[in-house]
Amino acid sequence: MRPSSLPQPNYRFAETIKRLLRRNASPSLKKILARTHPVDIAHVLDSFLPQERQKLLTYVGDDERQSEVIACLPPDHAAEVLTEMPLERAAVLLREMSGDDRADILGILDEEVAAKFLAALPQSESEEVAELLRYGENTAGGIMSPDPLAIQEDTTAEQAIRIVRDSPDVEMAFYIYVVNDHNSLVGVVSLRQLVTSKPEIQLWEVMNPHVVSVRTDEHQEEVARLVSRYDFLAVPVVDETNQLVGVITVDDVIDVIREEATEDILKMAGAGDEYAKNVSVFGWIRRRLPWLAAAWFGGIVAAMIIGKYRGTIERSVQLAAFIPVIIGMAGNVGTQSLTIVVRGLATRNIEVKHFWKVVGREIIIGVLLGLLFGAAIGATGFFDTYESAELNALSVAIVVAIAASLSMVLAATVGALMPLVFAKIHIDPAVATGPFVTTAIDVIGVSVYLGIATAII
Amino acid sequence: MRPSSLPQPNYRFAETIKRLLRRNASPSLKKILARTHPVDIAHVLDSFLPQERQKLLTYVGDDERQSEVIACLPPDHAAEVLTEMPLERAAVLLREMSGDDRADILGILDEEVAAKFLAALPQSESEEVAELLRYGENTAGGIMSPDPLAIQEDTTAEQAIRIVRDSPDVEMAFYIYVVNDHNSLVGVVSLRQLVTSKPEIQLWEVMNPHVVSVRTDEHQEEVARLVSRYDFLAVPVVDETNQLVGVITVDDVIDVIREEATEDILKMAGAGDEYAKNVSVFGWIRRRLPWLAAAWFGGIVAAMIIGKYRGTIERSVQLAAFIPVIIGMAGNVGTQSLTIVVRGLATRNIEVKHFWKVVGREIIIGVLLGLLFGAAIGATGFFDTYESAELNALSVAIVVAIAASLSMVLAATVGALMPLVFAKIHIDPAVATGPFVTTAIDVIGVSVYLGIATAII
Repeated sequence: MRPSSLPQPNYRFAETIKRLLRRNASPSLKKILARTHPVDIAHVLDSFLPQERQKLLTYVGDDERQSEVIACLPPDHAAEVLTEMPLERAAVLLREMSGDDRADILGILDEEVAAKFLAALPQSESEEVAELLRYGENTAGGIMSPDPLAIQEDTTAEQAIRIVRDSPDVEMAFYIYVVNDHNSLVGVVSLRQLVTSKPEIQLWEVMNPHVVSVRTDEHQEEVARLVSRYDFLAVPVVDETNQLVGVITVDDVIDVIREEATEDILKMAGAGDEYAKNVSVFGWIRRRLPWLAAAWFGGIVAAMIIGKYRGTIERSVQLAAFIPVIIGMAGNVGTQSLTIVVRGLATRNIEVKHFWKVVGREIIIGVLLGLLFGAAIGATGFFDTYESAELNALSVAIVVAIAASLSMVLAATVGALMPLVFAKIHIDPAVATGPFVTTAIDVIGVSVYLGIATAII
Repeated sequence: MRPSSLPQPNYRFAETIKRLLRRNASPSLKKILARTHPVDIAHVLDSFLPQERQKLLTYVGDDERQSEVIACLPPDHAAEVLTEMPLERAAVLLREMSGDDRADILGILDEEVAAKFLAALPQSESEEVAELLRYGENTAGGIMSPDPLAIQEDTTAEQAIRIVRDSPDVEMAFYIYVVNDHNSLVGVVSLRQLVTSKPEIQLWEVMNPHVVSVRTDEHQEEVARLVSRYDFLAVPVVDETNQLVGVITVDDVIDVIREEATEDILKMAGAGDEYAKNVSVFGWIRRRLPWLAAAWFGGIVAAMIIGKYRGTIERSVQLAAFIPVIIGMAGNVGTQSLTIVVRGLATRNIEVKHFWKVVGREIIIGVLLGLLFGAAIGATGFFDTYESAELNALSVAIVVAIAASLSMVLAATVGALMPLVFAKIHIDPAVATGPFVTTAIDVIGVSVYLGIATAII
């Protein structure tokens, strides 16, 4: 939450910096970097060699500003930059950071290296890091900032304003959390309420006692839902005994929303579950392999099914020509249903309790689209086969039409059903998808098609 | 931006309300609804009949609170609820709303009905609505709240605090925008800076003059990028002459981020581009049809290609069995590449200038995965064909292995290339996808497969 706001660098920013750095043009560099937002400096740091970036950092400003830039880097990259510098220097910069940024970076390092950094920090801070690292990465505890601004309920508005004034480094000082003698969260006041209250009034008189808080073990997705539903700017985090231990601000929530969307999209394509910047070719292969292996297995099953029906294909080879369009259309309509249901569940536009309504709708859509495209594909089948002067052109057309319709209906049903069933048994519906469902649809498609063909021809 | 915070209703909330409403239990209803957040009331309003919900609204509280509940509904639903009530009543509730909510609702109504509502509003407000409706739906002007808190630069801190105190209905009063005599935006101060300044100091002395603003015609996606990159709580909106005309708050940005993610996900599956709640079966069919039609066309092309090679298939019918696994595996690896690139572009993890780096990586991954699964599929082909005692088991295996490898490499290349090319020519990469690419891959797959088969066997 930095209200500072500066002109944005244009696309040539990185090149300019690089040129100045090679020319050792210290005054110009310092001037430019002083005017640049830490986020933008962090963004270009990527394109420099280790030595260059260490040199660049010295031009960024004092320790506080340097640590701000490093905190803006993705944690893995920040850890890299810190390990390149002398340990004492890294410890100084870590000490300047907010508690959550510090913990994110140290949490990524090898235990041995992290232990060295921790030893170089003052005890209170290294204890805080240890405390924060106890929480799961995707929980409220894992994304919160420790040390929220908490003020005793018997403080007066005037005293409270003075406390706000004297705490420049606190995150999100627009809400002030009110605690009792035991540090239990009892209410919230906004800075605005404080300003508009009489100076001598005590906080418990003006605070909103119905403060919504989350527990440290709440999933980050649930926190994001809460913040975006009620338009909160921040949510306090409490432990099992309602002690205030942290705060999650809306900027962290935006990151969570982006992350979760990326996760869903990648999962649906069977391509891992997060977008890390520095993944190697083998890293990507490892993420993609399991899904392809599942699809491969499904493909082998489909091949075996077709093998069983080779007699039918031998009698009318033209049947083989329609395998791709039948399983392709089924796959497409199934993927549509699947995507609509998975995204609907994620955005709460669809709820599991509407199971039959949703599945029913997708079945109706599948029937209508299936009849339409079944007829279209069947008609092509008729003319295609007719030209090749086979006797059973009409039979082929009928088989293709029925098979295309039926497999599209089944695909729409499976596509809608699977994510709902997964959601019902509390498995992430996004994993129920992509290669998994399309492969199932391939197998269903060829079975239906060749089964019908054998029966009719 | 409502800092109010109340206990969340559980899943039985709607049923409880319904029961109390049928029993006409006014005191209980009033008591419960008074304790419920407007968002939560809006959420259950969905499950009531028109008459019931009009009755329910009267229990919600005064005009202000009723209008708050209606403003929390999706605009199409809010328009429905307002048209159900007498015109004067609807006008009263519209008048209570913030300008952007009012414009969103009136923008959705038929022109004729909207004109009637506008005529019932005071002139200043109907002019404001007309003004807001000029802006495109997905632009900064379309999502901003008009009437931001703007204070003259020569105002003292003390006077400014008084102005904040006397403007209870202003959105996001945590930032105060500073304007000059001509209402041009010249700076920003946070409420916190005001509180911590000497009372007699003038705003121009404490303000940050480097205020980042967006123009009314800026795309909402760009606004979202700005807010999430710099962790802003709000961004001021100016017109061509730098006059302050509105403000976009972080809660609007969260909605934009969700919307854009949904749009990308649905587009990638060829299932429309937004998640509207009350879309009919035919509405969904209309959205899905064009993509299926494109896939149908591709499928027909694939069928024609296979038809051309019928001589080859007649010589070895077992070849037909491997069509699904070859095009399926190619489709899966292509979808993975595509998804990684489309999402990478959306989150700016991938940039168009890294074109060859990204495509090169996907080609390498395609080659490695292609070799691996090509061999696996070829081996299955060998044993499968061997069992059926054909003479050319080895040839079939070799054909299948080469075709599977090659089509997977091509699929990965096409999957990575297409979205980058689309991004380069400024077409949304998400539309370059789904049925479109998978169909192209089907055609490539069968051509490669049967071409190789004809050459070798």
